[in-house]
Amino acid sequence: MKDDVLYHFGLGTATHNLPAMFGDVKFVCVGGSPWRMKSFTEYIAAEIRMEDPESEYPNICAGTDRYAMYKVGPVLSVSHGMGIPSIAIMLHELIKLLHHAHCEDVTIVRIGTSGGIGLEPGTVVVTKKSMDATFLPKFEQVILGKTVERNTDLDQCLAEELLQCSKELNQFETVIGNTMCTLDFYEAAVVCVTLLDRLKGDQMNGSHEVLQSYQLRPQILVGNYIKKLLKAKAGRSCNSATV
Amino acid sequence: MKDDVLYHFGLGTATHNLPAMFGDVKFVCVGGSPWRMKSFTEYIAAEIRMEDPESEYPNICAGTDRYAMYKVGPVLSVSHGMGIPSIAIMLHELIKLLHHAHCEDVTIVRIGTSGGIGLEPGTVVVTKKSMDATFLPKFEQVILGKTVERNTDLDQCLAEELLQCSKELNQFETVIGNTMCTLDFYEAAVVCVTLLDRLKGDQMNGSHEVLQSYQLRPQILVGNYIKKLLKAKAGRSCNSATV
Repeated sequence: MKDDVLYHFGLGTATHNLPAMFGDVKFVCVGGSPWRMKSFTEYIAAEIRMEDPESEYPNICAGTDRYAMYKVGPVLSVSHGMGIPSIAIMLHELIKLLHHAHCEDVTIVRIGTSGGIGLEPGTVVVTKKSMDATFLPKFEQVILGKTVERNTDLDQCLAEELLQCSKELNQFETVIGNTMCTLDFYEAAVVCVTLLDRLKGDQMNGSHEVLQSYQLRPQILVGNYIKKLLKAKAGRSCNSATV
Repeated sequence: MKDDVLYHFGLGTATHNLPAMFGDVKFVCVGGSPWRMKSFTEYIAAEIRMEDPESEYPNICAGTDRYAMYKVGPVLSVSHGMGIPSIAIMLHELIKLLHHAHCEDVTIVRIGTSGGIGLEPGTVVVTKKSMDATFLPKFEQVILGKTVERNTDLDQCLAEELLQCSKELNQFETVIGNTMCTLDFYEAAVVCVTLLDRLKGDQMNGSHEVLQSYQLRPQILVGNYIKKLLKAKAGRSCNSATV
C-alpha cells in the first residue's frame, strides 16, 4: 500500500509524519465522550508531571468530528463514541496508526461509564471477560459471509494489576467482573464505572455532580497505574545507567 | 413515570418544556457527523426561507457531547454517530422526545454517507430495504434473552417520493436500493451518498473538495423534498381558508 488514509482520524501516512507524532506512545486510553478524553489528558498531564501551562492540548483529529484525540508525553487519549461499530472503526485506525508510528509495548485501556447489573452506582469494574447480548462470553463477527467467533477474555494479568492499583488507592469500590459489549484486543483492559443499577431502573437520576465524580474514578485508577509503570520504567533505566 | 431524563440529549421533561421547544417539528433529519447536521440546518434555513442572520443555530444538546441537535422552524437536525448502537440510543430518546412534545405526522430521514458496492462514488442511494452483515433483509435484536427478528422494509411510498424529487432536481445519479445497517422505524427513509466503491478498495482517496460535494447531495435532495411538502401544505391551508 502506497499511502494509508486514516479517514475517521483525519490523518494519513502521506499527510502526517506519524512516527514523529506518535512514536513515543506507550499508553492509549479510550472512552466514549470527547470531552471526557480531553479532561483525562489534563488530569494525566498533572499526574505524570508533564503539564504545560501554555498548552491547551489541541485535538489532533481537528480535521474531522468523528473522533477526538489528545496526547501528553507517552499517553494518547482517544474518544470512541457509543457501541461496538463506533469503537471498532476507531480501533481499526488506531492499530494501523500505532503500526505506522513504529510504537512498541503499548497498553490500551478503555476508561468508560456503563450500566451495571446488581452493583451499587459508582462501582468501578475491571473487565475479565466480555459478553454479548445473550450474556455468552463470545463476540461474533461476519467476515465475507462467514461467522467468526472471537474469544472475549481480556488480559488477566493487566486486569489483576489494575485491581491491585485500586486496592492501593482505597478510594472507591472496585470489582473484577464481566462487562457487556466490549471488544477483544491484545494487551488491553476495560475499566468502567457503573452509573446506575439496571435491576432498579434505567433512568439516570443522579445529580450532575455525583455522575461527574463517578466518571473520574476510572481516570484516577488508570492514572495511578500509568504513574506506577512509568516510575518502575524510570527506575529500571536509572539502574541500567548506573550499572 | 414522573420525570423522563433524556440523558444522551442532556434534556428531560422536568428540566425542559419539550412541547414549547419541539411541538412544531414535522421533519427530523439525522446523520452521523455533528458538523454535517449543523451545516444542514444552515442549508435548510435558507431553502425554506427561515434563515435568521442573527442566529448561530445553537446546539440544543450543548449540555452533553454525545449528540448534537439543531432546529430551524419545523426541521430538527440531529447527529447520531456511527453504527447501529449509537443511532439506536439516539432514536430511543428522539422518539420519546417527539412523544413528550406531542408532535404529529413527523417524517424522519437519515441523510448520510456510506460505502457502496458496485456503484460509482457520489451516487445517492434511497433505501428500500436494509440488510444485516450477512446481506439478509433482517435485523435481529435480543430482548430479555430472546432473539426478535425485525422487518427491515423502509416506507416504500416515501422512498419513491424521494426518488421522484431527485429526478426533478436532475443534479446527480440517484438509485433506489438496499442499504446495510440501517434501522427499521415507521415513516422513515434513508438517503445516503456512497463515498467509495468497496469492490475497488477501502481507501478514501477522494480530495476533500470532492468528498465535500458528495456529502451535500443527500442534503440537496431532502431539502427539496421538505420544501415541496411545506409548499403543498401551505397551499392546502390557503385553499381551506378561502373556502
